[in-house]
Amino acid sequence: NLLLAKKIQNQWKKFGLDSAELVHYDVLLSYPNETNANYISVTDEHGIEIFNTSYIEPPPVGYENVKNIVPPYNAFSPAGVPEGELIYVNYARTEDFFKLEREMNINCTGKIVIARYGRIFRGNKVKNAMLAGAKGIILYSDPADYSAPGVQPYPKGWNLPGTVAQRGNVLNLDGAGDPLTPGYPAKEYTFRLDVEDGVGIPQIPVHPIGYNDAEIFLRYLGGIASPDESWKGGLNVSYNIGPGFVGHDSFRKVRMHVYNINKITRIYNVIGTIRGSVEPDRYVILGGHRDSWVFGGIDPTSGAATLQEVAQSFGKLLSSGWRPRRTIIFASWDAEEFGLLGSTEWAEENAKTLQERSVAYINSDSSIEGNYTLRVDCTPLLHQLVYKLTKEISSPDDGFESKSLYESWLAKDPSSESKTLPRINKLGSGSDFEAYFQRLGIASGRVRYTKNRKTDTYSSYPIYHTIYETFELVEKFYDPTFKKQLAVAQLRGALVYELADAKIIPFNIQDYAKTLENYARSIYNSSRKHEQACRGHGVSFESLFSAVKNFSEAASDFHRRLSQVDLNKHIIFAPSSRNKYAGESFPGIFDAMFDIENKADPHSAWKEVKKHISIAAFTIQAAAGTLKEFL
Amino acid sequence: NLLLAKKIQNQWKKFGLDSAELVHYDVLLSYPNETNANYISVTDEHGIEIFNTSYIEPPPVGYENVKNIVPPYNAFSPAGVPEGELIYVNYARTEDFFKLEREMNINCTGKIVIARYGRIFRGNKVKNAMLAGAKGIILYSDPADYSAPGVQPYPKGWNLPGTVAQRGNVLNLDGAGDPLTPGYPAKEYTFRLDVEDGVGIPQIPVHPIGYNDAEIFLRYLGGIASPDESWKGGLNVSYNIGPGFVGHDSFRKVRMHVYNINKITRIYNVIGTIRGSVEPDRYVILGGHRDSWVFGGIDPTSGAATLQEVAQSFGKLLSSGWRPRRTIIFASWDAEEFGLLGSTEWAEENAKTLQERSVAYINSDSSIEGNYTLRVDCTPLLHQLVYKLTKEISSPDDGFESKSLYESWLAKDPSSESKTLPRINKLGSGSDFEAYFQRLGIASGRVRYTKNRKTDTYSSYPIYHTIYETFELVEKFYDPTFKKQLAVAQLRGALVYELADAKIIPFNIQDYAKTLENYARSIYNSSRKHEQACRGHGVSFESLFSAVKNFSEAASDFHRRLSQVDLNKHIIFAPSSRNKYAGESFPGIFDAMFDIENKADPHSAWKEVKKHISIAAFTIQAAAGTLKEFL
Repeated sequence: NLLLAKKIQNQWKKFGLDSAELVHYDVLLSYPNETNANYISVTDEHGIEIFNTSYIEPPPVGYENVKNIVPPYNAFSPAGVPEGELIYVNYARTEDFFKLEREMNINCTGKIVIARYGRIFRGNKVKNAMLAGAKGIILYSDPADYSAPGVQPYPKGWNLPGTVAQRGNVLNLDGAGDPLTPGYPAKEYTFRLDVEDGVGIPQIPVHPIGYNDAEIFLRYLGGIASPDESWKGGLNVSYNIGPGFVGHDSFRKVRMHVYNINKITRIYNVIGTIRGSVEPDRYVILGGHRDSWVFGGIDPTSGAATLQEVAQSFGKLLSSGWRPRRTIIFASWDAEEFGLLGSTEWAEENAKTLQERSVAYINSDSSIEGNYTLRVDCTPLLHQLVYKLTKEISSPDDGFESKSLYESWLAKDPSSESKTLPRINKLGSGSDFEAYFQRLGIASGRVRYTKNRKTDTYSSYPIYHTIYETFELVEKFYDPTFKKQLAVAQLRGALVYELADAKIIPFNIQDYAKTLENYARSIYNSSRKHEQACRGHGVSFESLFSAVKNFSEAASDFHRRLSQVDLNKHIIFAPSSRNKYAGESFPGIFDAMFDIENKADPHSAWKEVKKHISIAAFTIQAAAGTLKEFL
Repeated sequence: NLLLAKKIQNQWKKFGLDSAELVHYDVLLSYPNETNANYISVTDEHGIEIFNTSYIEPPPVGYENVKNIVPPYNAFSPAGVPEGELIYVNYARTEDFFKLEREMNINCTGKIVIARYGRIFRGNKVKNAMLAGAKGIILYSDPADYSAPGVQPYPKGWNLPGTVAQRGNVLNLDGAGDPLTPGYPAKEYTFRLDVEDGVGIPQIPVHPIGYNDAEIFLRYLGGIASPDESWKGGLNVSYNIGPGFVGHDSFRKVRMHVYNINKITRIYNVIGTIRGSVEPDRYVILGGHRDSWVFGGIDPTSGAATLQEVAQSFGKLLSSGWRPRRTIIFASWDAEEFGLLGSTEWAEENAKTLQERSVAYINSDSSIEGNYTLRVDCTPLLHQLVYKLTKEISSPDDGFESKSLYESWLAKDPSSESKTLPRINKLGSGSDFEAYFQRLGIASGRVRYTKNRKTDTYSSYPIYHTIYETFELVEKFYDPTFKKQLAVAQLRGALVYELADAKIIPFNIQDYAKTLENYARSIYNSSRKHEQACRGHGVSFESLFSAVKNFSEAASDFHRRLSQVDLNKHIIFAPSSRNKYAGESFPGIFDAMFDIENKADPHSAWKEVKKHISIAAFTIQAAAGTLKEFL
């Protein structure tokens, strides 16, 4: 990673950027033990291990001689050798454990659980298992979630073979960055928590396996049958829940061997700049990570390459005499795969400055996760700009020759509310924009090519985070002409260009107002199923609607006045607390109402709802205050 | 208070300010019960009350017919009728309870304690008593702390008579403002905590009395003798500690009757503005409170009058065609006496905007607390400006005719470090600047006339917060010519004028750097008494000194470049956690080292010290980053 950082630094200098510096932090990383491999076994009644999962994945053709390939593991799993009966917990979501505990009366305390990857962030699965009392959790990729029908497993197609496993960290950091230095940059002088007190580190061992190995465990699971079809994956097994194995195998147990090692390690961001000519102290940031699990053909290299292309383009513009109005910052982040560490530490080190001076953050992680159409997740402030720019970029899609990206995008993925506009999603988490958007409140966005949301039911792209995520995967299957990645690079670059160079920052605050209105209506509607309880506990959303109205009027007036403003907001968006990947609107209210009918103390539960309505109302009132002429 | 708010609003409009508005909040206030008076009694062996303290104070001459005078009480004391043996706890400071518990083996659990006012904020006394296990606390003003030798009690002189008592709130808010809406403005729509969960509200009854009544309790105290002269006040009693009364009175107990009522009450700030001509979105705030305990002759009227005078002067300037470069905000705060409520709620409502746009906050509470010389407490950024301006203002002091305020100030109160400069103190808390300085990080200052720090050993001015704090007190004793108040008004006004109108904001950052260096050296020196422990636990201050050095260099370079910057800081100053009135430098490190040799777990105690050094180092590094050319 250091060598690659230096290479990128040199390229940026060659491209003509005004500066390109390495910035380091010393963060906690987690690796498998090189002399003591992780695996999971089935033990017989004498405790003898009669089946062991694979230590490594078979390397792809042409990569047989690559050394030091990190085997599948879950970073930040504690070391441990737990043993117990096995329970199948579906996706290990909150609702899956509710089903097990409340409807099926199955207690996971002291058990090993096995969960399939997908639907929610893996860190949430581990946390849920821990809260349910499990002493270990096995994660595996089920063909139902990591295969498309009619597609061959790699290398013949882009489906997941049964021999490989998804790597990934299992932290629940909530934006803390380095687990040992929450809130502060992990510099030489920084105080570090003990690992036991580290933020978000799970307390039970967790390890990932492929579906060939998983099938062995699942085939012999006994106990209770799976509650319904939604618990069944694509393997030829019955998906019994357990606990334990059937019939004469009921003495058999599962034993996990996890020997991961935590290590404070130096990481390196590369920070490059093009100094603004008129507003040098206003920043537009384009950042994406450089580190990968093994070869990283898609994640992040399809995005990291985009970052290089954009940097080179701006270098060419510079040499033609152009200079942006505002400063552009290019960032190649390190250690994203370990919990967004490089980006978060830099945000922590420069929080005050960045918060006060940043105009926008555009993310440059993987530029493809599919090849069907465009996917955009961004602040409502950027919707109009994205629509405008996609109309100016050629569509890379077959059948859309000489059409715009906007046209193919609209045809393939119209928004559910308005069929006349393409879909734009809210930002969740799971990539480096998190610290900038969620914590510093900087307007942010990410764009990439994606699968067909209606027909492609698999989770992410099947090969994700395995040894088969190679350049060849991209070249042979995802983007042979590299046109999709070009379109994404053009859009990312154009966003940065406009944000950095337009005289008036191209934010549309009325879109933000409309979005607020939708969110308010939506959180209100989801309260309707508790209508009587709301009335009984005196919960009213009136203050929230009145705040939104005040904001909308201020936004209209602001656009009438057409001057310039920075908005900071934290209360409207958050990663879902049950699925870090998903964005949640009014997360405070949503979480307070989640599962509220089962709360032991309804009075204080509803009090919590009222409190969060009040917080949201205040935040919007304050934002309206910022938009108005203050005094 | 509402009538007075409207009067001030009208005056400001008449003076020619661009706007003057009332801004209201609904905050928790605390009042005596009108039909059930508070008092404290001595009970005999049958529980019969054989002595009761006075309900009210005798009114001053000319005020006999004033109705609705609030009797002495401590706002936010819970109601309650605790009864028990009495213990005298000196000033109820942390060190006083250490002495009692560690050296004298006296346990306050279940007792009523009596403490003298003075030295530290009364809220800290109540908290300390609560932590020591007391079930009630009586506060009284001892002549040793509230009388000057050779001065008559009021109305013949300005000393405290034995018949009156100091009012005051006993919250430990830590800047929260309204106890029911911490962090948020107390608007109609705001969620409110239950009073039991309210911030900083003490859990034991507390009530203030005069020294005539206190003498009755103290005269008969038995038990252990006071440890040394520092525990003896000015009454003709032995100042025994207790517990309980001597000899045949040992059956007697003390019973407190407190019937205070909490009430959510609407309060009103008046906010006036003069719009800036060049930087209208940069604010200089001059704010002081309007509410008082009874007549408020000194507190706050000597300062509130100053605020009116300054507003009127700026009005005159405006009518001559002048307009300041930046916006000036005048604020008449309500409910300061109940915990800085009006000022804090307004800061909470407008936090984002104020934090980003404010240049400075100048406080306009009481302009006199004595009549000897000037007292200045402010951010180091303002030192040079204060020196410059005081050289341009005439001294009001006898014997300094035709000299400058600077000259009399320097002659009477030179700083301890440099005899060639007058003393300037760091800001603590206890008035409305708290939210602006401590929480929003806005450069702040306060100036007033004060007593002679070398010879006048009494706490505050003796009559403080009693019924005798009248206009006549000021006119007859403190400032018969009103020249001291004029000088203070001139300095406050000049500070606002310069901060609002100078092309370059007159901050000196090198003074801040010097101050940081002094603080770092001072906190390091106070660690030296633990030198061996520091070495043993690997505590090093090197990172802090290196951060200060980085900051100093950046400051020098900044002044060389002479451009403009806003600094926010929270880590350098804080009100002392043991005495809200006092300012503390590096409060985190200081508190972590406080009483460290007696900590049960030295390892984690020293870990805490290391953590706080790291936090301070980071903050200074970040401030240096702000000063530097960022990229």
